[in-house]
Amino acid sequence: MHLPRLRPTPYAPGNQIQKQGKRVDIKVGVDAIAEASKKLSNWGRWGESDQIGTLNFVTPVQVAAAAKLVKKGKVFGMGIPLDGRGPQTATGFGGRWNPILTMLATGTDCISERQGFGSLGGYADDAIYMPVQAATHWDSLGHVFYQKKTYNGHDAGLVDSRGCSILGIEHTRDRMVGRGVLLDVARFKGIDALDDGYGISNDELDAVAGKQGVTIREGDFVIVRTGQMERCLKANAWGGYAGGNAPGVKFENCYWAHRHSIAAICSDTWGVEVRPNETSETQQPWHLVVIPAMGLTMGEMFFVKELAEDCAADGIYEFMFAGPPLVITHGTGSPINPLAIK
Amino acid sequence: MHLPRLRPTPYAPGNQIQKQGKRVDIKVGVDAIAEASKKLSNWGRWGESDQIGTLNFVTPVQVAAAAKLVKKGKVFGMGIPLDGRGPQTATGFGGRWNPILTMLATGTDCISERQGFGSLGGYADDAIYMPVQAATHWDSLGHVFYQKKTYNGHDAGLVDSRGCSILGIEHTRDRMVGRGVLLDVARFKGIDALDDGYGISNDELDAVAGKQGVTIREGDFVIVRTGQMERCLKANAWGGYAGGNAPGVKFENCYWAHRHSIAAICSDTWGVEVRPNETSETQQPWHLVVIPAMGLTMGEMFFVKELAEDCAADGIYEFMFAGPPLVITHGTGSPINPLAIK
Amino acid sequence: MHLPRLRPTPYAPGNQIQKQGKRVDIKVGVDAIAEASKKLSNWGRWGESDQIGTLNFVTPVQVAAAAKLVKKGKVFGMGIPLDGRGPQTATGFGGRWNPILTMLATGTDCISERQGFGSLGGYADDAIYMPVQAATHWDSLGHVFYQKKTYNGHDAGLVDSRGCSILGIEHTRDRMVGRGVLLDVARFKGIDALDDGYGISNDELDAVAGKQGVTIREGDFVIVRTGQMERCLKANAWGGYAGGNAPGVKFENCYWAHRHSIAAICSDTWGVEVRPNETSETQQPWHLVVIPAMGLTMGEMFFVKELAEDCAADGIYEFMFAGPPLVITHGTGSPINPLAIK
Amino acid sequence: MHLPRLRPTPYAPGNQIQKQGKRVDIKVGVDAIAEASKKLSNWGRWGESDQIGTLNFVTPVQVAAAAKLVKKGKVFGMGIPLDGRGPQTATGFGGRWNPILTMLATGTDCISERQGFGSLGGYADDAIYMPVQAATHWDSLGHVFYQKKTYNGHDAGLVDSRGCSILGIEHTRDRMVGRGVLLDVARFKGIDALDDGYGISNDELDAVAGKQGVTIREGDFVIVRTGQMERCLKANAWGGYAGGNAPGVKFENCYWAHRHSIAAICSDTWGVEVRPNETSETQQPWHLVVIPAMGLTMGEMFFVKELAEDCAADGIYEFMFAGPPLVITHGTGSPINPLAIK
Repeated sequence: MHLPRLRPTPYAPGNQIQKQGKRVDIKVGVDAIAEASKKLSNWGRWGESDQIGTLNFVTPVQVAAAAKLVKKGKVFGMGIPLDGRGPQTATGFGGRWNPILTMLATGTDCISERQGFGSLGGYADDAIYMPVQAATHWDSLGHVFYQKKTYNGHDAGLVDSRGCSILGIEHTRDRMVGRGVLLDVARFKGIDALDDGYGISNDELDAVAGKQGVTIREGDFVIVRTGQMERCLKANAWGGYAGGNAPGVKFENCYWAHRHSIAAICSDTWGVEVRPNETSETQQPWHLVVIPAMGLTMGEMFFVKELAEDCAADGIYEFMFAGPPLVITHGTGSPINPLAIK
Repeated sequence: MHLPRLRPTPYAPGNQIQKQGKRVDIKVGVDAIAEASKKLSNWGRWGESDQIGTLNFVTPVQVAAAAKLVKKGKVFGMGIPLDGRGPQTATGFGGRWNPILTMLATGTDCISERQGFGSLGGYADDAIYMPVQAATHWDSLGHVFYQKKTYNGHDAGLVDSRGCSILGIEHTRDRMVGRGVLLDVARFKGIDALDDGYGISNDELDAVAGKQGVTIREGDFVIVRTGQMERCLKANAWGGYAGGNAPGVKFENCYWAHRHSIAAICSDTWGVEVRPNETSETQQPWHLVVIPAMGLTMGEMFFVKELAEDCAADGIYEFMFAGPPLVITHGTGSPINPLAIK
Repeated sequence: MHLPRLRPTPYAPGNQIQKQGKRVDIKVGVDAIAEASKKLSNWGRWGESDQIGTLNFVTPVQVAAAAKLVKKGKVFGMGIPLDGRGPQTATGFGGRWNPILTMLATGTDCISERQGFGSLGGYADDAIYMPVQAATHWDSLGHVFYQKKTYNGHDAGLVDSRGCSILGIEHTRDRMVGRGVLLDVARFKGIDALDDGYGISNDELDAVAGKQGVTIREGDFVIVRTGQMERCLKANAWGGYAGGNAPGVKFENCYWAHRHSIAAICSDTWGVEVRPNETSETQQPWHLVVIPAMGLTMGEMFFVKELAEDCAADGIYEFMFAGPPLVITHGTGSPINPLAIK
Repeated sequence: MHLPRLRPTPYAPGNQIQKQGKRVDIKVGVDAIAEASKKLSNWGRWGESDQIGTLNFVTPVQVAAAAKLVKKGKVFGMGIPLDGRGPQTATGFGGRWNPILTMLATGTDCISERQGFGSLGGYADDAIYMPVQAATHWDSLGHVFYQKKTYNGHDAGLVDSRGCSILGIEHTRDRMVGRGVLLDVARFKGIDALDDGYGISNDELDAVAGKQGVTIREGDFVIVRTGQMERCLKANAWGGYAGGNAPGVKFENCYWAHRHSIAAICSDTWGVEVRPNETSETQQPWHLVVIPAMGLTMGEMFFVKELAEDCAADGIYEFMFAGPPLVITHGTGSPINPLAIK
């Protein structure tokens, strides 16, 4: 029997980009992951039943201080639009698709008096279907496993077809508020966007902070700007944005994040860390440490153009951050429209 | 041909609850709607191309002032969980359903080494399908029509199967921040929850504000607590919550909202206004004025229990409000997890 | 943190109906399942790479003979409608929901000339979202596991979040045609519908066939009528139809199906076999044998009222059967509208 | 406010292909459509309440005769697989997408003993989300409008956000059985596939039938093979298959279909009729006549490779046809896996 369909695209993410070049630090690999996982582990640090990891660094003190950063009353929405023109492509990672909006009631129905209100009233309604990580989003701590374990030592099997019975995004519903800091690496280097494959070192992050006159503090929501998203939008083509090559932090960043006790790290890329991977031994080595070992919250695909322009203009790179997730029970993450408020 | 299915449930919302009793004020009806639509119209007030109505009342001044209300650094998430146990019922309004979460990758797949990472790594992923108004949400200004027109005088036909080509929720992406005020009507009356059908008058809202020691100001996000949601949760049964009878503001509230130049009104009920409707001439008369004529943003199904308890405890009913919508292109609204920050 | 949602309904199917009464044959249980799985195994019978099990009994000879049964040219569609009034309930099995239809383009859009064709033309379009087993459907052989194995000895882990990499319904695309036989047990007993919990014995099936004057042959598609669906439709309430108690075949039926070398067994119930289960040691003991050990195709929720009336009228209980599945790649089954042609 | 998304793709189908060249017959256009709509109208022919149009040509006589065509007992499934590798592209027609399958329960969950059955049993389950016309499908008679009217004179507004309140696909549930005839135009011309833009004339259809030794009769399900789908599959790229250029019947085919009183016309292309359109005055002129005026059932994207090879081998181009739609209440069509049985 001949099945009339196209040949399959590869299942595993990023197969096509494993051929990394000179950028690879040969020390990055399974051993480095194992070492970092051990050294940076936060398992048990906030109790056995902890569900939120490094978000524990944010206390009411930080929230109150963050609010004091609001001076101008200017708000920046960092969510990208949810529609069919998002970054997912047909052959993209993990079978994700762009958000689909369908209407349940329309103004045209109202015009045709199909809603039972005669000519007086009427309404429109709609529904959305989307992978929770198909646009600007948080990863929950149940999103990534290392050696078949989640953050805080749970069996990965607790995340089954019913979702994250532990570490779901719902546990963070009132925890995504604090001090935000933008580290504008592209602007620091005087370019529009870092090249794909460019790895941001810990030293460079510190240099950017230094030049910007901002200090990273415990409980910060750190946003790293590479310019990659803006490059895609300018070109009117996402290309390999979702799952392909990208600039991003180096593997060593897990040590930086740990040292600074940050609450979360976010970027304008699909996966925060540099791609191609710095090793051929596995995919996304940094992910395998920061989520399962550290319980670090990660935000991806942030639209930071407007915020970055404002920070460059007034020289102030710290702000109040408010990025509430949807309360998706057992979710591996949530689409968001996070706010920077200056 | 016999089609083997159950008989249909009625299309029009609330047919079963039109038999309203002594609660009906006979002055509420099509004439009152017409009069209020004329008197309270904001069409053209912020220009012909305005997409956000009363959110224009919130300026950087209000945002900056709102941030100053943060003292304790305490955050309240007001979104209800998105899962199958939401308020929608099989025979409910408009064919809406409770959020459906399906997994795209699981920890059990990882355990069985089905993800191409061997025993080293793994991930989980999921997707959500939901009506945008099936849980805590904003209505966009494209959600309701009066005499086949939207806010600012557009033809309702501009909202078609492709969504709100005008007045979609995406226009509010950076506008849902400001001063929040809780008006705890149930606590004011010394009860757990107002009865279904109880209409909150303008005088009563003012009395609540007075007793609470809070003044309503231009650009406020006003949240009215009836206690209805908490009653349902305590009973472990939503009953007619979605589209049935409820306590809520009287029709006259449109004049109150206009007089105070508020940015938005929200409540812990499905539809903010009292049900059964105060008239038998149409459905939801207050909606027909505040959205199409005034361009008033409306938030529904807010979970306010924790916030209300805190306000009662410290006597402070004002706070910073941050309720960013998802940037749903052409959406009639957005599911949200709005924050109150004190 | 208090999550404002209703308390969960139980995950496992049928928890509420495990309290079976006098109907339980104590011989049914894990031992009986193990014994039948061994005795009735078809593993390897049609080769190691076989994907369709007992459908192999249907050869071109049977198909050609089946066509000869068509005399009157009368067609019966046995699919129930796909819409919101289907059997699934909020607390039903496995999180399934009733089919959701949403429009992508409408006639009202056309009326309002929103489609770019002016007043000349226009179109309507729609999309459907449904569990493949939420209405009349086939189970694929990848649907049920016994001791973590599928039919033909595969590891259950081959059915992951990407679906049935083996034994998916797509393999049956041109195999669901042959001789159909209706066994109208309810009519045999002179009643409208068998009671829930009534177990149909092998002897009774043979008695029904005998009285009807029909012989079961190799490769038959056998349809068992209990009358349960018609009872629900008459009452305009599905009640516990989906996953609750039901009349159906006894566990011993696996031996009957094996002895007759039938291609498939179908019924007008949710799960073919009697519920409550005949044992408290596990759920759906008959399923655990017929799918994993025998590779027997199963059809559920068939609407047989019209067919049964016709058979009773002309006394002919055999017919041509054509029930093509949708070619759902890796599907655990497919919604269908199977045809009986007399 | 800058919305960070790609620029929109055009809404109207086929904008990019309106620049037709020498192929255009200037007589095809709005006048020709009007004339044919009048001459070929079947409104009222089968009563005012008729919902199925030309399917009325199929009576029990035809069904019984069709069954007699089955000689070899060979079955051909003509549905293409429903998965992410279907013909829809990101910029394709009408916002349609390829079928999305998500799992509700998996074998990996079973392996990890997450289903409440211990090590004994387990199951897999899944759901599908797809536009009903995204793969092999029937159009219902509510799918296309002409001058804001449907077949049999209904107002197009009766097809609203709730679907086809008239002329939905559910009305055809037991009518899609009869005599099938393959007209293999590509093979007739001795080529693998007709070129895109090649218009098949009525004379050519008759010539093909003549050469094949088959006569078109009242009530036939006619399947036209162009070879286009096979060309795409061989190239492993759908290209513009969905909504782009294609070979197909000329506008004049509506007269041919009418003269022969066929029940349905099907093809291996996206839209049966030739593209680019034969006129620049509107889109898909043939559709505007055959559905609204004639009530002709149309089947699209049929996979006919195997059937065509068999017909070429044995010289027999007639067969029993069984293509039951899903009983999608109010559907504009249905995905199908239609069968040819020889």
